[in-house]
Amino acid sequence: MKELKEYVISIPDFPKKGIIFRDVTGVLEDPDGYRAAVDALAEKLEGVEFDMLAGVEARGFLFASTLAYNMHKGVLLIRKKGKLPRKTLEKSYDLEYGSATIEIHEESVKPGMKVVLVDDLLATGGSLSAAASLVEMAGGEVVKIIALMELVDLKGREVLGKYDFESILKYEGE
Amino acid sequence: MKELKEYVISIPDFPKKGIIFRDVTGVLEDPDGYRAAVDALAEKLEGVEFDMLAGVEARGFLFASTLAYNMHKGVLLIRKKGKLPRKTLEKSYDLEYGSATIEIHEESVKPGMKVVLVDDLLATGGSLSAAASLVEMAGGEVVKIIALMELVDLKGREVLGKYDFESILKYEGE
Repeated sequence: MKELKEYVISIPDFPKKGIIFRDVTGVLEDPDGYRAAVDALAEKLEGVEFDMLAGVEARGFLFASTLAYNMHKGVLLIRKKGKLPRKTLEKSYDLEYGSATIEIHEESVKPGMKVVLVDDLLATGGSLSAAASLVEMAGGEVVKIIALMELVDLKGREVLGKYDFESILKYEGE
Repeated sequence: MKELKEYVISIPDFPKKGIIFRDVTGVLEDPDGYRAAVDALAEKLEGVEFDMLAGVEARGFLFASTLAYNMHKGVLLIRKKGKLPRKTLEKSYDLEYGSATIEIHEESVKPGMKVVLVDDLLATGGSLSAAASLVEMAGGEVVKIIALMELVDLKGREVLGKYDFESILKYEGE
């Protein structure tokens, strides 16, 4: 059986020179790869009590929705600015390649609600850190953050220092 | 038990005056609502033979990924231009409110592969029609298209005329 990491396709110099892009589509496109990825993430949530799974647009939606279905939870969408129709809270952050603003519906997170954040990749930690802030601004509690892949050298884990963070596939010194 | 349609939040005049936006986040955020939505879509795929589930960025990802996991299929990402790192095929189309270009990885769809397209909403049919073209450009076959919601008055169903299309929640004359 293929190891999960073998499904990830590494693309040199994308989106710019010197960056190795870790392409999750190879994981998604294979039924066994995708199942293994979701199951590995689900394992990190064993024993964690929570109400909602939040995914950051767009790839985070893939894992948040599947895990939410499997664990009978709700899905919270953390979207790029301008996509959500109701009253929102917003937070801007620096990206590895630019900057961005993300939003949640203000009334989607009730005070005291326990939220798990999921993304495909932890790079600098900018988007996940901003996402966590949004949940907290709405009165929620971020009880766990999980990512399928982690680019260890970018030290996103330090940015998420105050949270319980775990990843499945670690990329270091490459 | 609440009906699935009751989880959809209708927002008048978004994103512009005269449009009633059908907000799927109310479905997603409720564990029972989300489960009911996915299960209703899965029912439409009973007896359908296929290899992959394709979701159109970003909300289509939610349903494509969950259905794919449950049915042990791969997920094909149909993304906005510039997001996919490998060689792509692209297709432009008119939106209800503007225009857009979407892409797939060229090598993700093998000739003869049977693909199901999923989206949260059928409006004018522009994005789903373009998505279907992309699958066909790559040599695949679109065996079914499903959407959670359908804005009947916009006649997207006619645009998708040559495909087997089904939706769950129909909005008409409102």
